[in-house]
Amino acid sequence: MSTPTPAPFTAEDYRARMERAARAAGDAGLAGLLVAPGPDLVWLTGYAPPVTERLTLLVLVPGRDPELVVPALEAPDAAKAPCGPALALRDWTDGKDPYAVAAALLDPGGRFGISDNAWAMHLLGLTHTLPGSSYASLTEALPMLRAVKDAAELERLAAAGAAADATYEEIRRLPFAGRRESEVAADLARLLREHGHSQVDFTIVASGPNGADPHHEADERVIERGDTVVLDFGGLLCGYGSDTSRTVHVGEPTEEERRVHDIVREAQEAGFRAVRPGVACQEIDRAARAVIEDAGYGEYFIHRTGHGIGVTTHEPPYMVEGEEQPLVPGMCFSVEPGIYLPGRFGVRIEDIVTVTEDGGRRLNNTTREMAIVD
Amino acid sequence: MSTPTPAPFTAEDYRARMERAARAAGDAGLAGLLVAPGPDLVWLTGYAPPVTERLTLLVLVPGRDPELVVPALEAPDAAKAPCGPALALRDWTDGKDPYAVAAALLDPGGRFGISDNAWAMHLLGLTHTLPGSSYASLTEALPMLRAVKDAAELERLAAAGAAADATYEEIRRLPFAGRRESEVAADLARLLREHGHSQVDFTIVASGPNGADPHHEADERVIERGDTVVLDFGGLLCGYGSDTSRTVHVGEPTEEERRVHDIVREAQEAGFRAVRPGVACQEIDRAARAVIEDAGYGEYFIHRTGHGIGVTTHEPPYMVEGEEQPLVPGMCFSVEPGIYLPGRFGVRIEDIVTVTEDGGRRLNNTTREMAIVD
Repeated sequence: MSTPTPAPFTAEDYRARMERAARAAGDAGLAGLLVAPGPDLVWLTGYAPPVTERLTLLVLVPGRDPELVVPALEAPDAAKAPCGPALALRDWTDGKDPYAVAAALLDPGGRFGISDNAWAMHLLGLTHTLPGSSYASLTEALPMLRAVKDAAELERLAAAGAAADATYEEIRRLPFAGRRESEVAADLARLLREHGHSQVDFTIVASGPNGADPHHEADERVIERGDTVVLDFGGLLCGYGSDTSRTVHVGEPTEEERRVHDIVREAQEAGFRAVRPGVACQEIDRAARAVIEDAGYGEYFIHRTGHGIGVTTHEPPYMVEGEEQPLVPGMCFSVEPGIYLPGRFGVRIEDIVTVTEDGGRRLNNTTREMAIVD
Repeated sequence: MSTPTPAPFTAEDYRARMERAARAAGDAGLAGLLVAPGPDLVWLTGYAPPVTERLTLLVLVPGRDPELVVPALEAPDAAKAPCGPALALRDWTDGKDPYAVAAALLDPGGRFGISDNAWAMHLLGLTHTLPGSSYASLTEALPMLRAVKDAAELERLAAAGAAADATYEEIRRLPFAGRRESEVAADLARLLREHGHSQVDFTIVASGPNGADPHHEADERVIERGDTVVLDFGGLLCGYGSDTSRTVHVGEPTEEERRVHDIVREAQEAGFRAVRPGVACQEIDRAARAVIEDAGYGEYFIHRTGHGIGVTTHEPPYMVEGEEQPLVPGMCFSVEPGIYLPGRFGVRIEDIVTVTEDGGRRLNNTTREMAIVD
């Protein structure tokens, strides 16, 4: 299969994102944003340094050019990053106090948004150096910063979804019975890479009773005829995530297995159909959950219905009770209800969905009927 | 090569570590330790959940049994973890407030040690729920918690070091000239796995001018005859880290290249010879740095001399100016001076060293002479 190759994001793209983020911070009454290595930094700069105990911190202050606090030994790589030309580097050497370097860039009494995944050690270091400062996580302060995808991002997410779909079409034609979960998982990883993924993040193969554990990965259990098998896999393609789940059956399912699968499929369909601009995220969860509850399996649907996806596979918006954020065209997230019957089996069906003016558009389009595998 | 297979740590081993940690917290005047997914949690429990936005937190309070706050959908995996029998699970479901679950276990006015790499979002969530609580990073509060290795840990670290050494012995016999750095890096990864590593964390191949960037990874540069090439690689074997660097030369080096290599080798030797119980960590840095400064290259040694290693490859104790912690038998850390000449080449030599009653013992034992490769 040909791998799509959208043009890479440019320094100008990153500069625009950083400006937009700084402006959003100002609008939210924040003195600035403090961005740690991880998805926020990748999205804002294209720079993906190793995550270590050494402080790397992008400082975005409304009306000021972006600055990057960076360990001296990482500075050459940072200068070469896609955003390099748009960033002023503030380096520090081992044995010096990196928080003093960062503090010099900050309003000592300001309130800052900080990346969810910034290390607690670094937040404590900043707080200690600037006792008058205060902080809110980016998910709390600016939850929608990365949530609405532009056309270039949607192109990548659609390509990642198509590659995951192609992976599913191949895996369900391979043998299941008599093979270990870990072998099928290795095939999923191989296929994702063959279809253009640069990174594989998870390859869940949960057969029989393992399927009742939603985050079971894959172990040495040998898959047997008669097993229900949950497949849930994804990674990054051109920097954007895929994440899809299908549940297959080795040979003919029992009536109950088929019924549970049908309920989950209807729940997924109900969640998808609820997607349209202006609807609160929690309504997607409620729509899917209602189908499962009405069928009497409510207590066995033990997680939220979905999560946002972009440069990482879990990010706002979350389709969860209590999340009142209205949907906006361009948002992308999973719709993935499931039923988990302890000691017996599980079923999950998951598509990535994006919001359009007219409703939802699925980025995964393989059949949601229960596939019978060998 | 045969892979060593020490007996896995048992629930009893983990229980003993948790008890020791809780006691150390009490001795340090802390109300408890809050341990996030990552190396601290792996070391204390053997449990390595995915790191996500969902709160997982081990709570260790002196005199009380350990408790694990865990997302409901991860609870089955947590129960199966090596420490499972020793842990009381406190699960929470999506849409509920996980900080309330954690707060119920904590002294509302207490001061807690928290994993360095706990997410800022979670620390802020705890602080918000318990405004009277306060926090210190584990590196600040209990820097030596994982620093002194016991016999079972030293056995694993020695095995990881031997596997890295075997990797070096093979890689230096493979061709370099005409191959891309990324190809040599792929060979390093393959060899580390062949020699028993379950995880490869870094495979630095920094040729010619790339060698002047200490954290250059490996790119598409084609290695040429006449290049100096820094190799720095490692990962995990039986859960413990390897990390070694050697600098090779493609064909005969110039007199200057040889001289710079000799200086770094002498610096590494001086750092190693300074290792003995009771010496402050910064003395290791000073001993290595003095050799390089005396030779006139001080400004080109742009990082600390070393870092601790255990279940992760960067942890206390750090061999850095300002670190007055005295060495204790059982500590393990790198001794890795380097010289980096911008636009030209770099040299780094690194061994993992453990402290014994009699001085240092190297866990890497390949020659530190500059190897001539093809």
